[in-house]
Amino acid sequence: MHYTSQDIKAMNRVNRIKVINSVTGIKSANLIGTVSNTGETNVAVFSSIVHLGSNPALLGFILRPTAEIPRHTYSNINENGCYTINHVHPGFTDKAHYTSAKFDKKISEFDRCGLSEEYIADFKAPFVRESQFKMGMQFKEAINIKLNGTILVIGEIEHLIIPETAFVNDDIDLEQTNSVGISGLNSYYELKKIARYPYARVTEAPDF
Amino acid sequence: MHYTSQDIKAMNRVNRIKVINSVTGIKSANLIGTVSNTGETNVAVFSSIVHLGSNPALLGFILRPTAEIPRHTYSNINENGCYTINHVHPGFTDKAHYTSAKFDKKISEFDRCGLSEEYIADFKAPFVRESQFKMGMQFKEAINIKLNGTILVIGEIEHLIIPETAFVNDDIDLEQTNSVGISGLNSYYELKKIARYPYARVTEAPDF
Repeated sequence: MHYTSQDIKAMNRVNRIKVINSVTGIKSANLIGTVSNTGETNVAVFSSIVHLGSNPALLGFILRPTAEIPRHTYSNINENGCYTINHVHPGFTDKAHYTSAKFDKKISEFDRCGLSEEYIADFKAPFVRESQFKMGMQFKEAINIKLNGTILVIGEIEHLIIPETAFVNDDIDLEQTNSVGISGLNSYYELKKIARYPYARVTEAPDF
Repeated sequence: MHYTSQDIKAMNRVNRIKVINSVTGIKSANLIGTVSNTGETNVAVFSSIVHLGSNPALLGFILRPTAEIPRHTYSNINENGCYTINHVHPGFTDKAHYTSAKFDKKISEFDRCGLSEEYIADFKAPFVRESQFKMGMQFKEAINIKLNGTILVIGEIEHLIIPETAFVNDDIDLEQTNSVGISGLNSYYELKKIARYPYARVTEAPDF
């Protein structure tokens, strides 16, 4: 099947959103935890977290246009610069998924979706206790993407909490950490490791 | 295990790159195909492709600092504005992986890594024939991320080529399309669908 840009524009809105949200392939499944300066906590599932660099350790995520609906995650980050990123595991994909419903700001998705807040010393934002692999982030910069009104939110990893089982042969193994992936807006996947290769050097490339 | 930002800075470079490239969770595995205006083709594996919006259908990817090493993908995109994004499948993760070696610009990774060029009418950049799920992209904008010298390259989908088997119950199913994921720099994963939920409405959220 071959769709041109005209075909994509002609799709009905819901189908277009479903299809175009799936075409990048698998996406990471993470919960972002925040708190307002008046103490209202928020947690929301994101599939757009992207590695930007390792030194400093910078991650980005894409925020839909803030004009569309209130973005509690972003307003909390703007208030105190602090957020957490927490891997989703198979045991709570349902709870993670429903954090994307547009609950009122007064309702904490932690309470409503059955997830538990967890705090560490000297870090304001709530972690997700059910997650075994999580990060405390310091906001660094928000870049407006004028083409469509989205925002690339960039932060640095201040705290990295990983399970002991994460390391297999000196590498983090996402099958062992029971991390999951997302496609589109609604589907969740388990991961099965199928191959690991050495760093690709020109002189060591096999004959294909 | 708990690493602070100081611990991360104190890691040796190779370990830090391995760890921090894995912390976002699973990443998509795609090959980007390009051609220079003098006809030299290039294909390279990327794990940073991110959905930016569906209307217009915009995808981004992150490019490491161009000062470090020559970036043939980016120079080709700058020459003619045209590139392809092609899903990696389990049968050629090895070939996809070795496209990341720093081959000379005169050497096409298509030839050296055993991948096949494929062209469609009125579109200059090469697709990867072995990939069943692929897109022809029109370059739109490059955004410099000053924090670390990386670049967010944004393009619009002009052509979307999907296998007939992609749609399961009206949704794209990445297990059916045999798409794979990447963690860190070296590990490849198959996907097993475990759950699909409806669009999350406040009024339909279960009691958790």
